[in-house]
Amino acid sequence: MRIVASDTGGALLDGDYTPIGLIATAAVLVEKPYRTASMSIVKYSDPFSYDMSGRQAVKDEALLAMKLARKTKPDVVHIDSTLGGIEIRKLDDVTIDALRISDRGKAVWHDLRKDLQPLAKRLWEDTGIEMVAIGKESVAVRIAEIFAGIYTARWAVEYARKNKRTSVGLPRYMSVELRPGKIYGESLDPREGGLFGEIEAETEGIGWELYPNPLVRTFMVLEVWRE
Amino acid sequence: MRIVASDTGGALLDGDYTPIGLIATAAVLVEKPYRTASMSIVKYSDPFSYDMSGRQAVKDEALLAMKLARKTKPDVVHIDSTLGGIEIRKLDDVTIDALRISDRGKAVWHDLRKDLQPLAKRLWEDTGIEMVAIGKESVAVRIAEIFAGIYTARWAVEYARKNKRTSVGLPRYMSVELRPGKIYGESLDPREGGLFGEIEAETEGIGWELYPNPLVRTFMVLEVWRE
Amino acid sequence: MRIVASDTGGALLDGDYTPIGLIATAAVLVEKPYRTASMSIVKYSDPFSYDMSGRQAVKDEALLAMKLARKTKPDVVHIDSTLGGIEIRKLDDVTIDALRISDRGKAVWHDLRKDLQPLAKRLWEDTGIEMVAIGKESVAVRIAEIFAGIYTARWAVEYARKNKRTSVGLPRYMSVELRPGKIYGESLDPREGGLFGEIEAETEGIGWELYPNPLVRTFMVLEVWRE
Repeated sequence: MRIVASDTGGALLDGDYTPIGLIATAAVLVEKPYRTASMSIVKYSDPFSYDMSGRQAVKDEALLAMKLARKTKPDVVHIDSTLGGIEIRKLDDVTIDALRISDRGKAVWHDLRKDLQPLAKRLWEDTGIEMVAIGKESVAVRIAEIFAGIYTARWAVEYARKNKRTSVGLPRYMSVELRPGKIYGESLDPREGGLFGEIEAETEGIGWELYPNPLVRTFMVLEVWRE
Repeated sequence: MRIVASDTGGALLDGDYTPIGLIATAAVLVEKPYRTASMSIVKYSDPFSYDMSGRQAVKDEALLAMKLARKTKPDVVHIDSTLGGIEIRKLDDVTIDALRISDRGKAVWHDLRKDLQPLAKRLWEDTGIEMVAIGKESVAVRIAEIFAGIYTARWAVEYARKNKRTSVGLPRYMSVELRPGKIYGESLDPREGGLFGEIEAETEGIGWELYPNPLVRTFMVLEVWRE
Repeated sequence: MRIVASDTGGALLDGDYTPIGLIATAAVLVEKPYRTASMSIVKYSDPFSYDMSGRQAVKDEALLAMKLARKTKPDVVHIDSTLGGIEIRKLDDVTIDALRISDRGKAVWHDLRKDLQPLAKRLWEDTGIEMVAIGKESVAVRIAEIFAGIYTARWAVEYARKNKRTSVGLPRYMSVELRPGKIYGESLDPREGGLFGEIEAETEGIGWELYPNPLVRTFMVLEVWRE
């Protein structure tokens, strides 16, 4: 099974470890044995002017996943929304009202589906590929989350090169490591069976430290600075 | 404390990682230091014609645990049903209605207790051993689950020997390993303090691969084939 | 960020692994990189006559944290109560009624705040330090919990020296190790990013064994005896 999935993660933090805005949306192609991505792309947001409501993230994720799907022709596209694996192209207002989600979630999806349903329908008509709202149950979505964290680390490295230093919060229970010429990241939850990722990055001349976010258990902070 | 517990787990998977039916019910005797079983027995089901409602599993588990309990005389028998540790022999209709479980759960137990209550009562009258519905809180039930996964791996090996290859899904966050003459399995959750198991098995001439089930995070797939 | 936090944990167990009473309240000073305490103090309770309702624990925790805070002047004090990070000094009856917690929780806090609000207010007026009810989300509270477990191990060692042997239950998913001249403890959850602690203790002439509590998954039992 070849799966394209996407997720948004990684936050710029202020001095009190409070998130200012999200940084990276990653889309990944995941193939057997489903432990890492065989291809990944990223779309960076501006964390200084970020829509924290979550709607922008879902749209960005759907668009980026679609872009990678058209290129790589997977069997299915996984979106990080926990609607029980329903196909996005079938999300009309009646179906949304029948979902077992909160009223607030329904309001968000009545709005979102105006953008996403036509896109998912077109993808399906053009390629036969379904886009499903499966959420964190999907290992591919979790791998996308880990890559969002790794790309966030690269953003932080580039930001520190220009602005001396910065701190970012990684997605849940994952670590990153700056290595010569690349950034490696992995899940800190061994129950997930060894999920990891790696991207190329210029890491020379950059110092870094990784430690637990004291205010949000199981989330790590990456601090990077120009040496 | 000597505990007998039982659980059902391991599923035959189709090509899309969808479960077709469950494979193994295991009963285990667990003694201090409570990390593995000092004795285990198995009852295999036919995954191609499996009652997925769960009632068959609970009955199989109770009967298999009772069989091992009559042989090994433990202090208590643990059943994988989360009814707060209530004694099965006391489960009359009034008590079931008073439980804090869903209406569906009550309907199932009104039905189940017709079979199980007399058996639990007889076990208690004959031996003084209580059978309690404690669920996954019990380490012994979790060890039974791990053994169900290990026996599932042996089933897969034997199936592949006859039918060339197969894929099975293991119980939650556990891994297995085919070793010469045996199959070893262990919990992937270090918070459980190192739970594991091992059984004898002919593993020669069998190839295998273990990887995350892409559709169900924290569950592993075991693929085995005749070499 | 310098944080003082406190928590109560560790239970004396009877022969059936049932808790008799809690043992240790620990307060810790946690500083970057937030993996252990740079200072810790303990208040032992009498587990043989322990108020299991939880109110005594919260009061002990607040008083002990305050004591350490007056000495070490942290930026903030974290209390193990999940009220969304609200400041204790602002907890009047109207605010408590507006919290999204159970009616039972509200009754407890209407009672507790009579003692705690004036103390938190005085701490804030004297030092500018806020005491907030953040709960287990705080890494500092989790480190306090780990230290409560380590101090519980020391209590068990001293108890065994006088009374030959004893068994204690540690806080959730943590292990301890008796080493020459000290006791080391650490989280068993790697998602927490490597939390640990160490205190001095006379461990000579003491045997010990650590194993899973068979009745409460992810909790460990420490058994110690005079050799």
